[in-house]
Amino acid sequence: MAEHDLASLDGLGQADLVARGELSAPELVEAAIGRIERINPQLNAIVIPLFEQAREWVRSDALGGGPFRGVPLLLKDLGCPVAGLPLYAGTKFLKDRAWVSRHDSVLGRRLREAGFVIVGKANTPELGLSPTTEPRTFGATRNPWDPTRIAGGSSGGSGAAVAAGLVPVAHAGDGGGSIRSPAGICGQVGLKPSRGRNSLGPSQGEGWGGNVTEHVITRSVRDTAAVLDCVSGPATGDPYFAPPPQRAYLDEVGRDPGRLRVGSFSSNAHISAHPESKAAVRGALELLHSLGHEVSEEYPAALDEPGLGEGGAAVVSACVARELDSFSEWTGDPLREGDVEPATWAMAERGRSFSARQYAGALERQQAFGRRLRGWWSEAEGEDGFDVLVTPTAAQPTPEVGSLQDAPVERILKLAPYTMLYNISGQPAISLPLHWTSEGLPMGVQFVARYGGEDLLIRLASQLEQARPWASRRPPIHA
Amino acid sequence: MAEHDLASLDGLGQADLVARGELSAPELVEAAIGRIERINPQLNAIVIPLFEQAREWVRSDALGGGPFRGVPLLLKDLGCPVAGLPLYAGTKFLKDRAWVSRHDSVLGRRLREAGFVIVGKANTPELGLSPTTEPRTFGATRNPWDPTRIAGGSSGGSGAAVAAGLVPVAHAGDGGGSIRSPAGICGQVGLKPSRGRNSLGPSQGEGWGGNVTEHVITRSVRDTAAVLDCVSGPATGDPYFAPPPQRAYLDEVGRDPGRLRVGSFSSNAHISAHPESKAAVRGALELLHSLGHEVSEEYPAALDEPGLGEGGAAVVSACVARELDSFSEWTGDPLREGDVEPATWAMAERGRSFSARQYAGALERQQAFGRRLRGWWSEAEGEDGFDVLVTPTAAQPTPEVGSLQDAPVERILKLAPYTMLYNISGQPAISLPLHWTSEGLPMGVQFVARYGGEDLLIRLASQLEQARPWASRRPPIHA
Repeated sequence: MAEHDLASLDGLGQADLVARGELSAPELVEAAIGRIERINPQLNAIVIPLFEQAREWVRSDALGGGPFRGVPLLLKDLGCPVAGLPLYAGTKFLKDRAWVSRHDSVLGRRLREAGFVIVGKANTPELGLSPTTEPRTFGATRNPWDPTRIAGGSSGGSGAAVAAGLVPVAHAGDGGGSIRSPAGICGQVGLKPSRGRNSLGPSQGEGWGGNVTEHVITRSVRDTAAVLDCVSGPATGDPYFAPPPQRAYLDEVGRDPGRLRVGSFSSNAHISAHPESKAAVRGALELLHSLGHEVSEEYPAALDEPGLGEGGAAVVSACVARELDSFSEWTGDPLREGDVEPATWAMAERGRSFSARQYAGALERQQAFGRRLRGWWSEAEGEDGFDVLVTPTAAQPTPEVGSLQDAPVERILKLAPYTMLYNISGQPAISLPLHWTSEGLPMGVQFVARYGGEDLLIRLASQLEQARPWASRRPPIHA
Repeated sequence: MAEHDLASLDGLGQADLVARGELSAPELVEAAIGRIERINPQLNAIVIPLFEQAREWVRSDALGGGPFRGVPLLLKDLGCPVAGLPLYAGTKFLKDRAWVSRHDSVLGRRLREAGFVIVGKANTPELGLSPTTEPRTFGATRNPWDPTRIAGGSSGGSGAAVAAGLVPVAHAGDGGGSIRSPAGICGQVGLKPSRGRNSLGPSQGEGWGGNVTEHVITRSVRDTAAVLDCVSGPATGDPYFAPPPQRAYLDEVGRDPGRLRVGSFSSNAHISAHPESKAAVRGALELLHSLGHEVSEEYPAALDEPGLGEGGAAVVSACVARELDSFSEWTGDPLREGDVEPATWAMAERGRSFSARQYAGALERQQAFGRRLRGWWSEAEGEDGFDVLVTPTAAQPTPEVGSLQDAPVERILKLAPYTMLYNISGQPAISLPLHWTSEGLPMGVQFVARYGGEDLLIRLASQLEQARPWASRRPPIHA
């Protein structure tokens, strides 16, 4: 099978070749390494190649027997520790010390049990703190659709690598939009699961006060669903977990979502959206209408609250300060101002300025906001409410590389005002590549369901994928 | 029906009289008011009578139609706000301002929908910060088994009132043992449900970083189960919730628990237990063995960790500081040092000394500890592990009134080293009145199950209640 064809297959498609004996798992991995060596220099999506480890793993007895047996995977260089693999979180501090994780995360173990073979680590801004992936340590990841543009963030390396066909599936994490933003900007599928759906055990607590969920960026809806089947569900001792699904998520693919009650939001008094972002939502609504859904312009009243989702900054910045502390604890070396980028240090300094009771108060306000926001959705069978909210994934077209570096937080929040709210509320949200701008660049559309409603999101995403397939759309930079 | 008999009936028993038409709901409530007026002066369990509101409510259309229709209930004077009812949290500050809640909590609404009639508020130490109920504002609650002894805390008013037959069911909250401690000391049933089982919405966040769960203290296991059926389950927007049960909890009462794998813990290198506490556990193990369970002295290795559950103090004290802030926000009056007891102020001051990143780090350590601790239990079907851990509820016999006031934290932690760990881990734990000391005082035995395992605890508690019934045991002070 030609390399060219592999780059177009999704993860289950690649695994199928192995299962049918058309290709061996080592051949699949070798082909991915070839694509990465050839294409990655143009993108800088993968910053820590792990080719030798991958070659060893795929030939070992440790190779997992799950549905993705032999499929090459990237881990984001943030979160998801795997014993023996480097983890720098985009920082020079950990890179200079060649930090290697001492233990497996639940997610890392489950991804391997699913059969994935880790071939490298994908670029991330330091600590995942930016919607653009341009860490000083590793440099900018570029967008395969236009290398002068950013790949989004913080899982930008993952988004670009999947878009360019280097790997079909890449790990990602989302504490404010970091799965959905790069998925949207790179024209891929990015699901942020519900709070507590994928374990952060045993060492990552609950992630930014419960705001972070890790998952993957994929080419196809079915890969997103099948990975969720492999990695979701409680692990021993998780402080809480999302309600279990009725059936396998993969079985939701192709299943009729019924007639859904859909609302939409693009802008209001304090959030403005570029015409392209509005067009993306309009197009999605037209498509939903044509598929028989009940479509409206209603949206949760909580979105009109002044100071929307405020408090997030206190929680996130304090957790950043805490993360820097933990890097010192891991390595035994005190982390100093020059060891991280000025923006990271400034955020940690801000985090250090908050007291514990301010933190507790901020979390309390977040939780109260989440309760108000979620009242708009139907949270249970037969409850009166909406099923889905449609929004842009980003408020503006994809910026150029360099334009956001050292940008003030306000500029960044303006770019992505739609995603963080559902980290606060814990709801699942997915970005789908349903819009292409006049310049031919992809722009994601976000769909938000009730807490625990990944099943509904996957049914809907699958219907939309079938109605307006994106699999054949390829960026100029592609393997 | 004589007052005397009513005082011996549990909540479902009292509701049954109403359902069968032997007594009206107003008569049931009037009888409780009579008992309270007669007995409470000896105990000081109820510090805010709400007799007129109860008389009005029970005659109104608002009276709930659930299984506890007409049954008198106390609310603890902490948590569970109900619109129009006073809430002082044991403080002079809120009492002086005659603070009245502006909205209903989910729990308060559900208790009323269950049919309960709120007849008063039960005493609590300020902000629930002590295992003895002796707030300066309202004075000490005394133990019906021996009025020179404490009633436990922080839900001591609730425990004493149920023990004395004033009401069959009283609301309680548990952030470190505050349901189990008074239930144990007063010879009643006290279940702390799993994290996220009972909503703290819409205004109470997640309660001390996820450590607090509210429920009730009852006379019978079936009341604990039936109330859980009425009040548990997610409410709109809860940040997370416990996995739903397979069937109604009431249906677990009398159901064979099967042969359980039981371990036990009383003392180790850093926790010591009084001989009576050890005898309580030994007796429970003998009983469990005679019932066919597999009994051992094994316990989770995490209990031997030095600095057991540390970090709790940072989280709790910061939340206390935050609570005092919120009292100022509610009332518009700044709360000053003299407005609360010295011990409360000292804890808030300690809380104020912690930074946000210390708080985030403390929560992270708590969650890591919870993950280590819970590995001992079988967390899923077919998983190898234990079903139940048996411990004393308290490490020492019940202290005298006055002996713990202004006691150092260390003395208090020595009294109750067994309970807080399961607030940290989020597991359900129940105290059952299975031991009486040589002085004839009740001493609780705690049973801890896996996260989400209230069903198992109720099956086991029901079996133990049947094997060694406590319903006929009555304290000297009883209605």
